Amino acid sequence: MHPYELIEKKQHGKSLSNEEVRFLIRGFTDGSIPDYQMSALLMAVYFQGFDNGETGALVDAMLYSGETIDLSDISGYKVDKHSTGGVGDKVSLILAPLVAAAGVKVPMISGRGLGHTGGTLDKLESIPGFSTEYTVNSFHQQVEDLGVCIMSQSKKIVPADKKMYALRDVTSTVRSIPLICASIMSKKIAEGIDGLVLDVKTGRGAFIAEYEQSRELATRLVEIGHQFDLDCTAVITDMNQPLGYRIGNWNEVLESVECLQGNGPKDLMAVTLELSAHMLKLAGKTDSIDPAREILQKLIDSGEALDLFYRFVDAQEGDVSSVQNPNDYPQSIFFREVRASKSGIIQAIDSYCLGMTSVRLGAGRQQMADVIDPKAGITLHKKVGDSVESNEIIAQFFTDDESVLDEAEQRIKTSFTIGDEEVKSQILIHEIIE
Amino acid sequence: MHPYELIEKKQHGKSLSNEEVRFLIRGFTDGSIPDYQMSALLMAVYFQGFDNGETGALVDAMLYSGETIDLSDISGYKVDKHSTGGVGDKVSLILAPLVAAAGVKVPMISGRGLGHTGGTLDKLESIPGFSTEYTVNSFHQQVEDLGVCIMSQSKKIVPADKKMYALRDVTSTVRSIPLICASIMSKKIAEGIDGLVLDVKTGRGAFIAEYEQSRELATRLVEIGHQFDLDCTAVITDMNQPLGYRIGNWNEVLESVECLQGNGPKDLMAVTLELSAHMLKLAGKTDSIDPAREILQKLIDSGEALDLFYRFVDAQEGDVSSVQNPNDYPQSIFFREVRASKSGIIQAIDSYCLGMTSVRLGAGRQQMADVIDPKAGITLHKKVGDSVESNEIIAQFFTDDESVLDEAEQRIKTSFTIGDEEVKSQILIHEIIE
Repeated sequence: MHPYELIEKKQHGKSLSNEEVRFLIRGFTDGSIPDYQMSALLMAVYFQGFDNGETGALVDAMLYSGETIDLSDISGYKVDKHSTGGVGDKVSLILAPLVAAAGVKVPMISGRGLGHTGGTLDKLESIPGFSTEYTVNSFHQQVEDLGVCIMSQSKKIVPADKKMYALRDVTSTVRSIPLICASIMSKKIAEGIDGLVLDVKTGRGAFIAEYEQSRELATRLVEIGHQFDLDCTAVITDMNQPLGYRIGNWNEVLESVECLQGNGPKDLMAVTLELSAHMLKLAGKTDSIDPAREILQKLIDSGEALDLFYRFVDAQEGDVSSVQNPNDYPQSIFFREVRASKSGIIQAIDSYCLGMTSVRLGAGRQQMADVIDPKAGITLHKKVGDSVESNEIIAQFFTDDESVLDEAEQRIKTSFTIGDEEVKSQILIHEIIE
Repeated sequence: MHPYELIEKKQHGKSLSNEEVRFLIRGFTDGSIPDYQMSALLMAVYFQGFDNGETGALVDAMLYSGETIDLSDISGYKVDKHSTGGVGDKVSLILAPLVAAAGVKVPMISGRGLGHTGGTLDKLESIPGFSTEYTVNSFHQQVEDLGVCIMSQSKKIVPADKKMYALRDVTSTVRSIPLICASIMSKKIAEGIDGLVLDVKTGRGAFIAEYEQSRELATRLVEIGHQFDLDCTAVITDMNQPLGYRIGNWNEVLESVECLQGNGPKDLMAVTLELSAHMLKLAGKTDSIDPAREILQKLIDSGEALDLFYRFVDAQEGDVSSVQNPNDYPQSIFFREVRASKSGIIQAIDSYCLGMTSVRLGAGRQQMADVIDPKAGITLHKKVGDSVESNEIIAQFFTDDESVLDEAEQRIKTSFTIGDEEVKSQILIHEIIE
């Protein structure tokens, strides 16, 4: 078997066999297949695709490039949630303790933010002392004891994905649906979970903006899950405006706590409850979504979910008092209000632009080595459909970087489209694929 | 400018600017753009193409990656011929001295064979002592004095092409028309010629088999020539059976001498005279092809072309007596005849298969480091349209490698399709593009 022939085969639109995919991944991982051949192959995959058989073989090959986690001796159903990434998407912070409070185990391996979307680890690490560096044994222990643990990707799990992602990232081959699927699913299957709920974002602020492509991604993710005997539900949710009002790491922790206190914004709560309910359904706690939603609402109303969140922060060495007394948290040096340029109704909010602006404020990374400012962020005062008066505050933002103030104000302002027409209510949950 | 953005731009089917192409080639040549990004870009070009502007910019960038030859102080028109490569294609050996005998300068930089087609240098080097290693100065001198010189590609000329071809060769990105065009034309323009005749082969034994693609290649080659003020004519010629009867390096030298003696096979002579006549026309020796063909035929009939061939061999340190007394040349250890499996008319000869078999006999390279056996080869006794009796000799072959005898016999036999139908005369010259 020669890499050249496999590149040519894919280039001509033919399917690679399981053995051929395995040969490629093994060779790439051990260095016997050079980067320049793998990048040519990845570009051919970008154009010609991978069918379910090839994608499954890719997941399999990546999975066995490293170690997998075995949680089978922990009693009860183990379920995780993965989001393809959105602006203001702090759902994991609320959902993980909430679902665990319902008696379902939530072992979660998360990533950091890159580009316009934030990362769960960065948000949690804005809590002073919070640690996401776990050994597999301590991860296992906390899932068993507390019911929830969120840790960072270990180098030993799916090393082929790390190497391949680094190559895709510099060769413009990230946006390939089968490659995205394999990258997500190999890591999730390696976690040793029983079920997975996928939050596939669609719209302007999503990694994949077009609905049909989001739908294809959702469908293929679920199909791969089923190939590997993983219970899987994908929920396609809207990202045409940010989720909730708060963007930025510490800012999103604050909004997550508000949600767990029962004071969360409607859209954020709706998405969180939908995803959490599907996790309960997968775990067999209920037969359908509505009763699951009721159970979850009660856990919020009773304070049990918030209590578990505090215990979870404490278990991961985070300073619980900082979350309970947010006024003591350090403040950004600069603070500005953004005001409406005219009166009317908010027609649209460009969440991609807000996400990129948030990165400029210090809340995200342009390159993997960048250091995040946990305090930096944007708080919206208005969302799509809201009425505004001219010069009314529509958002505020905070940063330590004086040089970006004017540009950020301008960009946030232009992210809001204000018009005269009534806006019909926004669809949040587009479709369930299971 | 970032390589990533340029890959993405091409991936999405957008055109790169001259500056962007230059940036890529310069970075690739000096090593600042890594192979893995260039191979991803090349694969994107394979799928999305390069328009004439981009291809011209590529030629330009490759051209100025190294030195160019200046022949402007040599009086008279300088014209070269380039073939996209065929089986049994020894046209350069006949055409170069023939056109020079007509008083037109022929500075020729040639390549070696790789894959199923042979290389002019390998054929010439089968003549004992023949040298193709020239400095630019001595090349210049011989073109001035003798009117013809054939030398190997210098490392100083178009170094970017050498590096890029090596990468294309292992990443399945050779068969891209704009990349083929840029590779050919940058090297030809660097020669300092005034005109170029391109022999674009089409059919089963050609590098590009499909007629429409051959036509596109021919058209674009001519267009690029014109962009660089090079007079250019492309002749699309047939490669659905080998050219002439002899395949293999020394074997093709023998057939070339027969042609210059006036005893050449009809198809080989027709193609040689057609291409040579276009060179004379470009040089302004005649206004049209027919009178040019007559001049050339007279130079063969008078022995002047053969005489110039001998002087050319002598000038390049080849042993002229070996060509004049071919019976003294070493013989292959093994010799076999291939006989017809049934009576009938030859319907087709698979020249690709014959080319590959010839490589197996030792006449070509599977890898660049392979050593060629100049004696090895195949001689056809029948061509398409000829009648054969069952068990009549259709070909013979010779090699020093005993292990390939049976397989070669079988493959040569199956290269011939014998049937009952009359075969209409084969079109040799498909189209002229100028």
